[in-house]
Amino acid sequence: MSKLRVQCFGLSLDGYGAGPNQDLENPLGVGGHAMFQWFFPTRTFQAMQGGNGGTTDINDEFARRGFENVGAWILGRNMFGPIRGVWPDDQWKGWWGEEPPYHASVFVLTHHARAPLVMAGGTTFYFVTEGVEVALQRAREAAGGKDVRVGGGVSTVRQYLSKRLIDEMHLAVAPVLMGRGENLFAGLDLTALGYQTTEHTPGPGVTHVIVKRQ
Amino acid sequence: MSKLRVQCFGLSLDGYGAGPNQDLENPLGVGGHAMFQWFFPTRTFQAMQGGNGGTTDINDEFARRGFENVGAWILGRNMFGPIRGVWPDDQWKGWWGEEPPYHASVFVLTHHARAPLVMAGGTTFYFVTEGVEVALQRAREAAGGKDVRVGGGVSTVRQYLSKRLIDEMHLAVAPVLMGRGENLFAGLDLTALGYQTTEHTPGPGVTHVIVKRQ
Repeated sequence: MSKLRVQCFGLSLDGYGAGPNQDLENPLGVGGHAMFQWFFPTRTFQAMQGGNGGTTDINDEFARRGFENVGAWILGRNMFGPIRGVWPDDQWKGWWGEEPPYHASVFVLTHHARAPLVMAGGTTFYFVTEGVEVALQRAREAAGGKDVRVGGGVSTVRQYLSKRLIDEMHLAVAPVLMGRGENLFAGLDLTALGYQTTEHTPGPGVTHVIVKRQ
Repeated sequence: MSKLRVQCFGLSLDGYGAGPNQDLENPLGVGGHAMFQWFFPTRTFQAMQGGNGGTTDINDEFARRGFENVGAWILGRNMFGPIRGVWPDDQWKGWWGEEPPYHASVFVLTHHARAPLVMAGGTTFYFVTEGVEVALQRAREAAGGKDVRVGGGVSTVRQYLSKRLIDEMHLAVAPVLMGRGENLFAGLDLTALGYQTTEHTPGPGVTHVIVKRQ
């Protein structure tokens, strides 16, 4: 059965998944990189950057698991880029350059239609204006029996959680305080929605937590 | 210099320090005991119950540190008991029986005056109606140069944090979701208030985090 998964979702101690004021210079919001300090040194991330070094510890294990059996992705529009509103042109092709790390179909949630964008390495961005459920349906079809990964951001994950559509979520809780930004938990009663933690593993500078829908 | 400290403050993954609907049967709110599973088996907690067993691991180390150099305590009224409003009589003497585990002066924040309550083992409860700053001043005087510990609950800790009066806070983050209850972080920008994490130590079933004011 194809699952809808969240993986490697960096979270501050106070529940923020991104810093405030995202823009071109701050894809994760101001200060948001602090939630991903565990991820950047891993072999998995280094390989995404074209390198061949990196750590092979438990953090890398979780990073690697995040890409296993993933057949398609769903991203919120802010995860795709800093542009808001109507697309001014087709110049913006994501944060990741000519060859994004997805190597699969990626469904981008947006209110503004745009033609699909074929990138190098097997990634195609499809822009979905019909909402989260349609995006999920299309992603499942594209995934061909594999899982679908919600790449973020916070608002997108919250929408899927509130509809009880996420099966499994890996949170990487960093020991930092953000103070403000986009909060994953605020106003969401995950317990009432049927979610429970099933795994809790410390790694260097981070705590990995697995949350599943019962 | 006498510090104002929070210690052994159990927190759920989603930021709750207590469950909802506290009452006589649920001193920590419904489900709130889940945040303290790390604490109950420790030698420190067992000794508080009159036992002489218990674990002596890193969790016990943090539990033990929580009582070191503490000269006085401050508690919110709900931490003292489930009674709200005017005291109906002097029957309620706290959750802890005749010999509470404080062995020091304990200042209870309340809107309703009550005579001090002398208990066995050196604990005296003083009821302070003049607010958190007066309670702190009186606790500092009683502590005689030692630190003052804020025992909780969530609302009391939040009041002292929002006034930047807490010097150091030990949070014990349990891998559980509460969904609702009293949230420590909601609406508090700890970063803007000058707080940062300085320590992050995994223990069995919990992550210990130290937060300090810069």
